[in-house]
Amino acid sequence: MRESNQGIGHQTAVSPDAPAADFERLFNPRAIAVVGASGDLQRIGGQSIPILRDTGYLGAIYPVNPKYPEISGLVCYPDLRSVPRPCDLAIIVVNAVVVPQAIRDCGAAGIPFAIIFSAGFREAGDAGAALEEELKTAAREANVRFIGPNCIGTMNLKDRVYCGFGAGFANSRLKAGPVAFVSQSGGFAFSVVGLADYEGIGFNYVVSAGNEANIGTLDLIAYFLERDDVKVVASYIEGITDGARLRAIGRRALELGKPVLVWKVGNSDIGRAAAESHTASMTAGYALYRTAFDEGGFIEIEDVHDLVDAARAFSSHRLPHGPGVAVVTTSGGSGVLIADACDRQGLELPRLAPDTVRAIEALAPKYATLANPVDLTAQVTADHERVNRVCAHLLADPGIDQLIVRYGGVQGARGAAWANGLAAVVEGSDKPVLVAWCRVPDRAEVSMQVLERHRIPWLLTPTRTAHAAGALYRFARRRERLQAQLARRGDRPVAPQPLELAPGAGTLSEHESHWLLAAYGIPVTRTQLIAPDAIDRLKRVPLAYPLAVKIDSPDIVHKTEAGAVRLSVRNLRALKQAAHDVMGAARRYKPDARINGVLLGEMAQGTEVIVGAVNDRFFGPVVMLGLGGVFTELLQAVSYRFAPFDIDTARAMIHAMPAHPVLTGYRGKPALAIDALADALVRVSLLVADHAARIAEIDINPLFVGADSVVAADALVVLRA
Amino acid sequence: MRESNQGIGHQTAVSPDAPAADFERLFNPRAIAVVGASGDLQRIGGQSIPILRDTGYLGAIYPVNPKYPEISGLVCYPDLRSVPRPCDLAIIVVNAVVVPQAIRDCGAAGIPFAIIFSAGFREAGDAGAALEEELKTAAREANVRFIGPNCIGTMNLKDRVYCGFGAGFANSRLKAGPVAFVSQSGGFAFSVVGLADYEGIGFNYVVSAGNEANIGTLDLIAYFLERDDVKVVASYIEGITDGARLRAIGRRALELGKPVLVWKVGNSDIGRAAAESHTASMTAGYALYRTAFDEGGFIEIEDVHDLVDAARAFSSHRLPHGPGVAVVTTSGGSGVLIADACDRQGLELPRLAPDTVRAIEALAPKYATLANPVDLTAQVTADHERVNRVCAHLLADPGIDQLIVRYGGVQGARGAAWANGLAAVVEGSDKPVLVAWCRVPDRAEVSMQVLERHRIPWLLTPTRTAHAAGALYRFARRRERLQAQLARRGDRPVAPQPLELAPGAGTLSEHESHWLLAAYGIPVTRTQLIAPDAIDRLKRVPLAYPLAVKIDSPDIVHKTEAGAVRLSVRNLRALKQAAHDVMGAARRYKPDARINGVLLGEMAQGTEVIVGAVNDRFFGPVVMLGLGGVFTELLQAVSYRFAPFDIDTARAMIHAMPAHPVLTGYRGKPALAIDALADALVRVSLLVADHAARIAEIDINPLFVGADSVVAADALVVLRA
Repeated sequence: MRESNQGIGHQTAVSPDAPAADFERLFNPRAIAVVGASGDLQRIGGQSIPILRDTGYLGAIYPVNPKYPEISGLVCYPDLRSVPRPCDLAIIVVNAVVVPQAIRDCGAAGIPFAIIFSAGFREAGDAGAALEEELKTAAREANVRFIGPNCIGTMNLKDRVYCGFGAGFANSRLKAGPVAFVSQSGGFAFSVVGLADYEGIGFNYVVSAGNEANIGTLDLIAYFLERDDVKVVASYIEGITDGARLRAIGRRALELGKPVLVWKVGNSDIGRAAAESHTASMTAGYALYRTAFDEGGFIEIEDVHDLVDAARAFSSHRLPHGPGVAVVTTSGGSGVLIADACDRQGLELPRLAPDTVRAIEALAPKYATLANPVDLTAQVTADHERVNRVCAHLLADPGIDQLIVRYGGVQGARGAAWANGLAAVVEGSDKPVLVAWCRVPDRAEVSMQVLERHRIPWLLTPTRTAHAAGALYRFARRRERLQAQLARRGDRPVAPQPLELAPGAGTLSEHESHWLLAAYGIPVTRTQLIAPDAIDRLKRVPLAYPLAVKIDSPDIVHKTEAGAVRLSVRNLRALKQAAHDVMGAARRYKPDARINGVLLGEMAQGTEVIVGAVNDRFFGPVVMLGLGGVFTELLQAVSYRFAPFDIDTARAMIHAMPAHPVLTGYRGKPALAIDALADALVRVSLLVADHAARIAEIDINPLFVGADSVVAADALVVLRA
Repeated sequence: MRESNQGIGHQTAVSPDAPAADFERLFNPRAIAVVGASGDLQRIGGQSIPILRDTGYLGAIYPVNPKYPEISGLVCYPDLRSVPRPCDLAIIVVNAVVVPQAIRDCGAAGIPFAIIFSAGFREAGDAGAALEEELKTAAREANVRFIGPNCIGTMNLKDRVYCGFGAGFANSRLKAGPVAFVSQSGGFAFSVVGLADYEGIGFNYVVSAGNEANIGTLDLIAYFLERDDVKVVASYIEGITDGARLRAIGRRALELGKPVLVWKVGNSDIGRAAAESHTASMTAGYALYRTAFDEGGFIEIEDVHDLVDAARAFSSHRLPHGPGVAVVTTSGGSGVLIADACDRQGLELPRLAPDTVRAIEALAPKYATLANPVDLTAQVTADHERVNRVCAHLLADPGIDQLIVRYGGVQGARGAAWANGLAAVVEGSDKPVLVAWCRVPDRAEVSMQVLERHRIPWLLTPTRTAHAAGALYRFARRRERLQAQLARRGDRPVAPQPLELAPGAGTLSEHESHWLLAAYGIPVTRTQLIAPDAIDRLKRVPLAYPLAVKIDSPDIVHKTEAGAVRLSVRNLRALKQAAHDVMGAARRYKPDARINGVLLGEMAQGTEVIVGAVNDRFFGPVVMLGLGGVFTELLQAVSYRFAPFDIDTARAMIHAMPAHPVLTGYRGKPALAIDALADALVRVSLLVADHAARIAEIDINPLFVGADSVVAADALVVLRA
């Protein structure tokens, strides 16, 4: 991180080594060469040209194949050198073994981009993997950027450039729209495009990323985010390897106010096994993906409907400033349903301000409910003006951050009048307004068109509307959090400390581990190491009884299991006995263990938590906070943050831990030392980040959180070479 | 429960006092009178007759209104007495105050059923509630059954009987189908019907239940379940009051193999507030609903899609015998997605048998994945016969309980050939086969029709398919559990015990509470009660030190808060001191408290759990098991079962508790005394059920679970009058 010396949490938005490349000519080429073109429509090489023509490509098409003088009425060129210039893109469909040469030919012919359909690379075993390496080198040397190999193609629906094969490309009626979709599964992507189109959402760009030997999924997401004709990026992801890039994209998405919708798959054991056989991706742990998603502008989705709804909801370019939702319906039942679904989304339905209630009361019919959700009853279905005036009052309520409307009279000319009136109301506010649809879409085209013209999102069901409102809220909250983080200077509580670490990988003893923590100012229990031959000479110890007595050895990690721990030792005589017992147990457990001595430590008290840190190979340093005991594991009561982070992030991390009221207070019990815990978390994050090159893992288990202070009672640090 | 003396868990399927009534003539009447008919189409009274006629009702229609000689060309009758016989149904649209008389008139005219649209009853305050009571009495005396008041009507789409008003009834193109829908919100119900129709699922019956002053939601669900033309019942429920009836319906649904899909709303605080203002239902706790749903044939749904999918999935009348799913796709990406989604549903993708792998290998193309999920790749899209043969092999695998197929070549005549081939394969097996659709529905009508003809469920997306498979599995598992429960004779470990309980409501002291538990054989810590004046005379106690010393008073429930507890008391001298301390603390805390004395108890050890029981006013006795400490509350680590139950149910209850491995073993740690815990749970369930008339609550906190035994260390019983 370039600016890490300026403070923590103050990072560049996009990794400086990977700016969004310019792929304009890749997706909108002036001319396309098809290398391996064929006249046989049953072959993949035969499909590209008819698809390009049938779906409206307006540039020149140059078939390349020495076997034919012409294909489909087009002059066929014997090789890429003879293709007229300018040609911006080559579609490559030849046998895998000749693909690297085809890429070299692209370079020689001045063709900057390629899309490689050919399979038989990394997915096909060792020989294929070697071929893929050759392909990468060829592209680097020839200065050619390419998508694939082993992909099914790309679509630019806005400019009508369909470069692909298979049934997904056969539909020329697909509409363009504000979504760009980057997929690590081609077949699935194009079926999603079809279904989303059926629900009225169009895509400007769709890419099957294939093996990503050159242009990767993250390159494409970063590129599309910057395009003005893309409002939402969607991605099907089995695995990525550049966690820092993913995080940078998340920050950029928040800055731009454009969400990246993610279908993250391969998260379960069975899914992961299947994902690895599918693209051979090495998949980082799902918990770390979720940490990156929660930190940035990513929204995880599960189905096509979520994509359709998010595309609509974010098209309004409005974000709420808080969790408060007002709901107004003409059917009480759907109001209840929306209220429940909002609750599950973490939204609130605040009590309406007295002024708002009075204003609505003057407009509402008998039996209407004036609380939130507002039920205007079916009585008003014929009176859209009243409904719209109620909406205006709800939007003016200072406690309301967004509005959900469900109105029954959406059909025909009266529906259109309602929609136009609502558009005028929406115009007068900057808060998001979502319409929960009431009827099947094909019975109210006119009002629907009015809403779309005014970018008022409509969602097909009450539940889906609440989900969309929840997505807007979470995105907005993260955006505000990022802005706050960029605005403050998260000063380091401790400067980078030089640590003299032994070379090589290995586990440090508890005493050495304590010393590392102490170097970063993390409170540790007071300890003293006694050499084996000093036990009998011991007169007194500068520690307060009762004490814990443990073996200190880099070779005995599980001290309790080894029987090499004694607790609650209350005086010197018991201490000497315990020290001898522990030594004996350690020698029996592992006769060849290197033994530093016996570690005496003061006994700590408080609520136990686990603080851990790892250096993930894809995401880098990350800190984990978990409830102590077995609950971290059994109930997944943990939260994660990437290191380093500042004190505000540490506080958020504490509050993100399930069951955090154990620490932050519940049922009248006061909070424990949250500031001290947050400070310790920051210091752990700095320790693991400053020394990421050497520290593989830190495990503080337990850290005791007391009323006024925290103290690490047991620690383990694992080094890497 | 009639048969409770025959054993526990062996219950009648349907409460004997509430058999499913015969509503045949209500939903399919030979003639209909419309009381309060009007010629004004803007009025509710003016809409019924045009709706009945436009939507194809074939019986006679008799307008009743003394003001008109005829309406819409029909003879109008001055009163119900003059209406020709037979007339099976009256639609009532008159002012609320005259509705009771209209019902009396129905009785006099021999009309057995009514549907009351009129509002102004319970939902309109005290006067309305009194009017509703009058209406109930009138119906009982006149022997008339009715739906409503304050409802928007009913639909029988099979026989074309639309009795209602509003936009929901204007669509005469809705198709009939296997679903019956009973809704506590009329407006919402009819919008659901429209959306489901749009996705191809029809309803034979739709009912807006209104205030349910006579025929209730549960009556209607019970009735529709028994009908042959109903395969799936759906219901929107804000609240019900007869929990036993709900449970009986759940058992009947399992017996019949028909699911009851439930939209349970009003579960969040905001939703509940809105629900209560909407239908004024008193809503039982959501946890108890979920307990009833999980026990019976209910499937909770969140959106219209879930309803559509469950209707399709259950239409095959096939249920899986276990969690094993085989997935076969022609796109690896969707295979991964389905695998992940199956995992979230609690399904498994077992390793395929060696024979199956060999058989598939002979059929699969190069690069196909022969593990589960099977990816046959897009290579086979033109070769449906191979795909179908692979399906046959997967269905024959003994580890596979159901099959999910996602195939790309569904279009046109080749798609139809695939579907017909698949139907033949499905015919040869009794396992469920679900098709995950690949294309937008309107591009493959023919293959879709073939699937529907053969009752092969198709679902629109991979995720929705996995959800449907999960619903089939959960339903099947509960059905098998019910069958096992009915087959075994859950003998009572303890006969009903006579308990001499003081009259009146109130909290028992700890000593009294212990005694009740002991009467049912629940292990309690050994205790001794010492009268206040006996403390100083104490010579020795027949208990093992260390002891807990607590005040024993029915007036001091929170003993720790009162400072009236001392733990780990190690000898007689300390004991006397502790007893005086505790007495003093209690007197300071509550000077007027009735004090029985000081309770001495042996200290117990083990893992803490909480065992509770309540007598819910709607659901009756229910037992709760929770993790001890703060986790029950903060992490909702609890499970519930209705009392009484047998030892198998108690074991299932333990395994249903989140974090149960703390008790049942994890990471090599052996299980604790699960059998003893299960036995204690059974005994608590018998205690609270046998004495449901008197016991309001039992709270055992903690119950210690050790390696070999359990013991209740603190108990509190609350009586009701």
